[in-house]
Amino acid sequence: MKKLINKPEDVVVDAMRGIEAAHSGLVKAFYDPNYLIRADAPVQGKVALVSGGGSGHEPLHGGFVGMGMLDAACPGPVFTSPTPDQMLEASKAVNGGTGVLHIVKNYTGDCMNFEMAAELLSMEGVQVESVIINDDVAVQDSLYTAGRRGVGATVLVEKMAGAAAEQRRTLAEVAEVARKVNAHSRSMGMALTSCTVPHRGEPTFSLPDDEIEIGIGIHGEPGRRRVKIAPAAEIVPMLTEPVISDLALNSGDEVLAFVNGMGGTPSIELYIVYNELAKILAGHGVKIARNLVGSYITSLEMQGCSITLLRLDDELTQLWDAPVKTAALRW
Amino acid sequence: MKKLINKPEDVVVDAMRGIEAAHSGLVKAFYDPNYLIRADAPVQGKVALVSGGGSGHEPLHGGFVGMGMLDAACPGPVFTSPTPDQMLEASKAVNGGTGVLHIVKNYTGDCMNFEMAAELLSMEGVQVESVIINDDVAVQDSLYTAGRRGVGATVLVEKMAGAAAEQRRTLAEVAEVARKVNAHSRSMGMALTSCTVPHRGEPTFSLPDDEIEIGIGIHGEPGRRRVKIAPAAEIVPMLTEPVISDLALNSGDEVLAFVNGMGGTPSIELYIVYNELAKILAGHGVKIARNLVGSYITSLEMQGCSITLLRLDDELTQLWDAPVKTAALRW
Repeated sequence: MKKLINKPEDVVVDAMRGIEAAHSGLVKAFYDPNYLIRADAPVQGKVALVSGGGSGHEPLHGGFVGMGMLDAACPGPVFTSPTPDQMLEASKAVNGGTGVLHIVKNYTGDCMNFEMAAELLSMEGVQVESVIINDDVAVQDSLYTAGRRGVGATVLVEKMAGAAAEQRRTLAEVAEVARKVNAHSRSMGMALTSCTVPHRGEPTFSLPDDEIEIGIGIHGEPGRRRVKIAPAAEIVPMLTEPVISDLALNSGDEVLAFVNGMGGTPSIELYIVYNELAKILAGHGVKIARNLVGSYITSLEMQGCSITLLRLDDELTQLWDAPVKTAALRW
Repeated sequence: MKKLINKPEDVVVDAMRGIEAAHSGLVKAFYDPNYLIRADAPVQGKVALVSGGGSGHEPLHGGFVGMGMLDAACPGPVFTSPTPDQMLEASKAVNGGTGVLHIVKNYTGDCMNFEMAAELLSMEGVQVESVIINDDVAVQDSLYTAGRRGVGATVLVEKMAGAAAEQRRTLAEVAEVARKVNAHSRSMGMALTSCTVPHRGEPTFSLPDDEIEIGIGIHGEPGRRRVKIAPAAEIVPMLTEPVISDLALNSGDEVLAFVNGMGGTPSIELYIVYNELAKILAGHGVKIARNLVGSYITSLEMQGCSITLLRLDDELTQLWDAPVKTAALRW
């Protein structure tokens, strides 16, 4: 295993210290339990957004802490849920008096632990709403999931619900935005290569030199099928058509098109994928009104990509365009 | 070879079309010869910045076209210099009447072709200045270079000279800023893995499973030495100490610290590297006043990183902080 790390058991804390050192104006880090919060938290009168999950998906979630997006992120061990005490302490640290929204990717451990944290917070009188993200059309259930997995839509939910919170909408309203973004988003990913979890030291799965996995999960969970490596012009439709179909997109619809790198994919390849995606959508008469191209929800050093489409309306477009200032996303 | 591409010979144009489709508000693309320009070019009365080089280093340079940075980028074939006609046409397209600055990484082909383009432009009455970037302390000469290679400082030069041009400084003044940034910057990189040039289809070099290359070039050129894989806490000093020494940094100096990913390196590892870098600089009494962490000058899907330090003064800090709006860098 070749990685730029120290001891495998120190990966999460070492990276948190790096984020803290690099972005001290944006975030504050707390350890044991581990969480990152906005440097100016708690923001009084603003609904607080808290997310988290296993590490290894960076910049998700710590890179999205800041104005216009998350108030706190709870990083678990690599590919392993954070614990309820992380979510509890983070939520209390950022609660501005108007409640906390938990944004939870649909994995069994994350759901269970966020639910427990929400119960503990309720007992302490903190108002909590939870939104489960489940946008991956690849498989119905998976190794770690009952129901669809939460993937790329998480980034969009965090951005748009974050913008709604900045407008001082109520907890119920911000949760409504988050659910709407999730409901109108679908994703599918693929892998060219596996990834290696540091404390295991061996690739999560093996993929022959001439094969790729269509429908991969962000922890290397199996997808729909393996196929021979093919040109981007053939691979991108395998990801996009199921998304278009599941989202029931029609000619004239406007979408946000998000091409995401899995961590080890260079920018040049992501733009080649985007070019194919744009052609497919044009063929369906679907207009890309907004887009995002980059590695925002990753699987360590896995090579591959995912495509997320979100059906836009005026409200969501405005929330997307609203200012954001985080380590990984800013405008 | 597993990559998200179509035909190897179409990689550059397919990626340009993707950039054009994704960022039509920011850039316009031209083909045959290939170049990207600011959507609002030419900006009358502003010195125009033109850069370019082999493709495979994205987001450099096309991702840096826009307000506050480059006016045009000329992408050559992967790891191969663009041709003088690309630079000529791009320069003419963005010339706002006050001259053009060519920002050239120190590789033999780039230098020769930019020089020829500058001569042709002079014959057409366009004022041109050229700045050669040569910040890599790893080796004195290399496979493709007489003298030091141009690497990470290129990003900083493009940002700061771009800001100076936005302030409507003269061509001589903008060139002076570019030379100053280069003179005060030093870099060194390392690779965990090789990369594969699409039209070759085989890795550029081979590296045993337990070895890394210290001082690697951005085209996979040999570095200083190969060592066994080691913890980040041992690798980062191998890159940083030669940079500190060559830059003659002293206690009390302020720097911009740039941790760059080589294309296949996940964000979590870059922040672990940043954490080690911050500790080393603190040990020298050097203050990190600004930083940049991400994959900005890459070598296709190579895993590894480079570290660039730039000695800051008030002028350079202000130029760094000035607004920028490009596909890959914005604030």
